[in-house]
Amino acid sequence: MRSLEQVIRQIKPPDEGAAALARARQDTLTKPRGSLGRLEELSVKVAGIKGEPMPGLSRKAIVTMASDHGVAVEGVSAYPREVTAQMVQNFLRGGAGINVLARHVGARVVVVDMGVASTLEAHPALVSRKIACGTRNMTQGPAMTREQAINSVEVGLEIVEKEVEKGLDIIGTGDMGIGNTTPSSAITAVITGKPVAKVTGRGTGLDDRQLAVKVASIERALRVNQPNPNDPIDVLSKVGGFEIGGLSGIILGAAMHRIPIVIDGFISGAAALIAAGLSPTVRDYLIASHISVECGHKAMLEYLGLRPLLDLELRLGEGTGAALGIFLAEAAARVLTDMATFSEAGVSQGEVSRIES
Amino acid sequence: MRSLEQVIRQIKPPDEGAAALARARQDTLTKPRGSLGRLEELSVKVAGIKGEPMPGLSRKAIVTMASDHGVAVEGVSAYPREVTAQMVQNFLRGGAGINVLARHVGARVVVVDMGVASTLEAHPALVSRKIACGTRNMTQGPAMTREQAINSVEVGLEIVEKEVEKGLDIIGTGDMGIGNTTPSSAITAVITGKPVAKVTGRGTGLDDRQLAVKVASIERALRVNQPNPNDPIDVLSKVGGFEIGGLSGIILGAAMHRIPIVIDGFISGAAALIAAGLSPTVRDYLIASHISVECGHKAMLEYLGLRPLLDLELRLGEGTGAALGIFLAEAAARVLTDMATFSEAGVSQGEVSRIES
Repeated sequence: MRSLEQVIRQIKPPDEGAAALARARQDTLTKPRGSLGRLEELSVKVAGIKGEPMPGLSRKAIVTMASDHGVAVEGVSAYPREVTAQMVQNFLRGGAGINVLARHVGARVVVVDMGVASTLEAHPALVSRKIACGTRNMTQGPAMTREQAINSVEVGLEIVEKEVEKGLDIIGTGDMGIGNTTPSSAITAVITGKPVAKVTGRGTGLDDRQLAVKVASIERALRVNQPNPNDPIDVLSKVGGFEIGGLSGIILGAAMHRIPIVIDGFISGAAALIAAGLSPTVRDYLIASHISVECGHKAMLEYLGLRPLLDLELRLGEGTGAALGIFLAEAAARVLTDMATFSEAGVSQGEVSRIES
Repeated sequence: MRSLEQVIRQIKPPDEGAAALARARQDTLTKPRGSLGRLEELSVKVAGIKGEPMPGLSRKAIVTMASDHGVAVEGVSAYPREVTAQMVQNFLRGGAGINVLARHVGARVVVVDMGVASTLEAHPALVSRKIACGTRNMTQGPAMTREQAINSVEVGLEIVEKEVEKGLDIIGTGDMGIGNTTPSSAITAVITGKPVAKVTGRGTGLDDRQLAVKVASIERALRVNQPNPNDPIDVLSKVGGFEIGGLSGIILGAAMHRIPIVIDGFISGAAALIAAGLSPTVRDYLIASHISVECGHKAMLEYLGLRPLLDLELRLGEGTGAALGIFLAEAAARVLTDMATFSEAGVSQGEVSRIES
């Protein structure tokens, strides 16, 4: 197993040569140049990430990490805490939104217990890597120790290794954790420097009073802990969550393996902020599946320099948006690899093929 | 075979009861109410269209209709006219964008020659319903006779019948025809009442001078022909195209059979304007897959009261956007039918489940 530092050192920029070859091929395919818009861009990005001018994306996984949050006792969620564990059972039985959408796009779902507060029965499809039974309440002190933060990231690295062994072309991130928009907003506020109230939303459905409680809780957590925005592990340990740390590890590990990472919504975005803090290069490996209803998501994506593919007013998490994004990435790659060229098809080229579109 | 008038009479509004049952079921599924956003709305719409609270969308077809346009001699396209026939061959060999994306979403492609200017060799996958070898130049007089216009719509009706016999749950529309954004802009200007210049775009890639020629050609066609905006068949015959007429028939026929229709971009939108003129009820059967780069598309969708699902800067046509839209519709339906309910999964409901989201 490589250490976190080793992985960070081994993340290299995407392959510009492969991207250029993919771009050149797009311009020979039987369609007006640029007429498949963002699908063309996406195919070029994927080619650069994988270092292959004709990338295949048939082997797909979505890693959905679950954990509980001490801050939930402050009343920052509309749902009771036991829902985290119940939803993990739902994932394992295949009845949740992520299961349905992952099946629809042909992706396997990897369910990881990063720190669910209750003891989950062993299940062949459950990866148990519980760091602790939920984080501590971040309004009172750090959510976790620095060691736990590093461990959580390393769990993500380890899981990527296992998935790569099974065969992996693209990975999606997903989360489950009652209360986890709260640490995600806290991380966003610290790293982007935006005011807490601007990056804190209603999560699963808070009313105005509850939203005010949530904002106040995050502000208190930042005051109490003083996370250092230039030290992502410090931010993660003080105001993060185990699933957020784990997903940061997924992102870093996948980038090291040159695997495109389709990030889901707000919680995955918080993980991306931590990962990009540890290695700015990982930004080039990220595909933003959608823009969430959660109000801090926009600030997050702007900070990361990412433009979301979809705007379907999703706010479920679990990796559901990532599943749809994986479908689009595979569509883009298939266009690149499977379409006929003008010469193969004997189709006349227009003047448009000789000008820049 | 039913006549066009019979089909129009048999189009009934969607089933509000089925839609209400689907809405109620969405609110029992294991996710915060409304958290799958537009996928939830889409599932409810599909349920209403099909008249089934738990609709399945596994049998999918995209009808791609090809035709030539007399107005092409005015220099309104960046591509030579022979490309229409060449691209039909590309469709039949499976190498075009629509073939790749239809395979990716598991939809069959039905390729129809509605009026390609050259004689196409017979092919088992080609449906030959040539009304004429291209329309006449609409800047000089009507593009087609009124009888040809009605015939083109009836071809669409006939094709829907055949597809329904094969088994059909959802249908997408697509087009191929060098020059066909020109009649589509003309139809949009007539029916929405917007100025020609506001609804005319660069098609496959015109420069400023060519765009001015295109706008002037459309303005001349409207002056010469004086199409009656209250008579959709008059509009179609004077400034339309055979594939546009055929796609109007697809839309009307599918609506009669309570089959959701995923419309592609600008040319399919023109067909939808004609179809909605003949039967305003068909609007409720339409799903707008995406917003095209072509500038008149927005006006079209606003007129039809439709909100596009995707914004990927597509402008290829062929049904490529429709293919992606079909994927989303099926995703939405699967969420509705396949997700576990709170009681099935033993998941606690939050307070959010008792309030309106």
